[in-house]
Amino acid sequence: MAILERELVDSPWLELGDHCFRSRLIVGIEQYTSASLVGDILQASGTEVFITTVDPDRHRSSLLLSDLADYVPLDRYIWIGTTSFARSARSALRTAWILRDNYGIRIMKLDVRDESNRPDNWQTIECARELLAEGFEIMPFILPVPEDARVLEEMGCAALRLMASPVASGRGIVDPCGLQEIIARCRVPTIVEGGLGSAVHAAHAMELGASAVLVNTALVKAREPLLMAAAMRQAVDAGRLAYESGPMRADGPVD
Amino acid sequence: MAILERELVDSPWLELGDHCFRSRLIVGIEQYTSASLVGDILQASGTEVFITTVDPDRHRSSLLLSDLADYVPLDRYIWIGTTSFARSARSALRTAWILRDNYGIRIMKLDVRDESNRPDNWQTIECARELLAEGFEIMPFILPVPEDARVLEEMGCAALRLMASPVASGRGIVDPCGLQEIIARCRVPTIVEGGLGSAVHAAHAMELGASAVLVNTALVKAREPLLMAAAMRQAVDAGRLAYESGPMRADGPVD
Repeated sequence: MAILERELVDSPWLELGDHCFRSRLIVGIEQYTSASLVGDILQASGTEVFITTVDPDRHRSSLLLSDLADYVPLDRYIWIGTTSFARSARSALRTAWILRDNYGIRIMKLDVRDESNRPDNWQTIECARELLAEGFEIMPFILPVPEDARVLEEMGCAALRLMASPVASGRGIVDPCGLQEIIARCRVPTIVEGGLGSAVHAAHAMELGASAVLVNTALVKAREPLLMAAAMRQAVDAGRLAYESGPMRADGPVD
Repeated sequence: MAILERELVDSPWLELGDHCFRSRLIVGIEQYTSASLVGDILQASGTEVFITTVDPDRHRSSLLLSDLADYVPLDRYIWIGTTSFARSARSALRTAWILRDNYGIRIMKLDVRDESNRPDNWQTIECARELLAEGFEIMPFILPVPEDARVLEEMGCAALRLMASPVASGRGIVDPCGLQEIIARCRVPTIVEGGLGSAVHAAHAMELGASAVLVNTALVKAREPLLMAAAMRQAVDAGRLAYESGPMRADGPVD
């Protein structure tokens, strides 16, 4: 890749304190049962973020840090916490506190989901207000509702995570125009997440102007997760370069 | 990129005589007026194919080979001819003969378009029959009609070029399922072409199982053609890797 292109895809899209986010691919790892596979996935994806969590309600198992440490160079990653197991603002807050008090994590991937596993925007906003007041940097996950995005941005969130389609559905971006409008208006970085089932969906999100994408199930469910991780890495660069290139516009609906 | 991934994206998808096609990105260059830009585009795209033509009816200008030779290392490319200016089988044949007799070209990107600039499948088949009888290797461009694809494959075409959407429209792949079915059934390599307006469309074609894509207007019309060429190059690798990874399937239409 030429120098200009390298610069474009490697320039930071988010800086939080000493942490500089350059890779535009973030990978969820809470579905794996093999620590060695997690290590390989993180490497193949080129991500710089290590997402960890605890389950305060003990509903699910997760890999132990002590097991991961054998396969993942943990000190090389930016650690962020996730509340993705939380089904209420209360449970999300409890998770955040445990991660802060035990791991020293201050950057939180905030998720408050409803029973259908979709983001609960109202509860997320409520929870965001409390965590921000406590000094957390937060990245809330929301349904792409313009007004909710605006409220969270003005509250001081570090970045917004916008749902493309239901988590684990693999349906891609169901409303590209709607998503693009929110991204274009948003003054903090946007991460597109949920339902990105393959490389084409990741490239699509980046072409709409997203700062980054977060993928998870697409890798877990691929026949060859490491190949899909490599595909996602390339797709994110491809989509970013295409966005920066000022692509042509389609000449209207097919007749 | 790891060794396995490099092998997957670099393994030949077509071999014709001494020519080995590895790059899965083919770039049309007949719309440019700057030979230096053509040189940069070919390099940024990583393509291995140099497409040249003559206009037997003198309807359009094109860059002269002697000008291109100052900017393009012509001997490093696989030369193929194109009949993309042809509006009849007769005109296509005349173009092919001129390219054979003057440049020694035996591999022909066969296009016979109607007045609306769409492939004329019937005339293309007629023309293919004649060129094959004369010993050409041909890659015909057709509307994605399963029966026409089958006929051309059985006639002995080297590869088939399937239209995604109208040339220069930027609309992407209008019927992904239909295209995927033809690609899956076809025993010769398939190239998806026409209307691929950005990186996401190229990745999409590759994820559907195409052997390669051909782009043209997407580069010409991008604000930064070289960035788009780089984006397309990455998108093709991303899509191929995703296809090879055995991606998850979407869980059905959005409710």
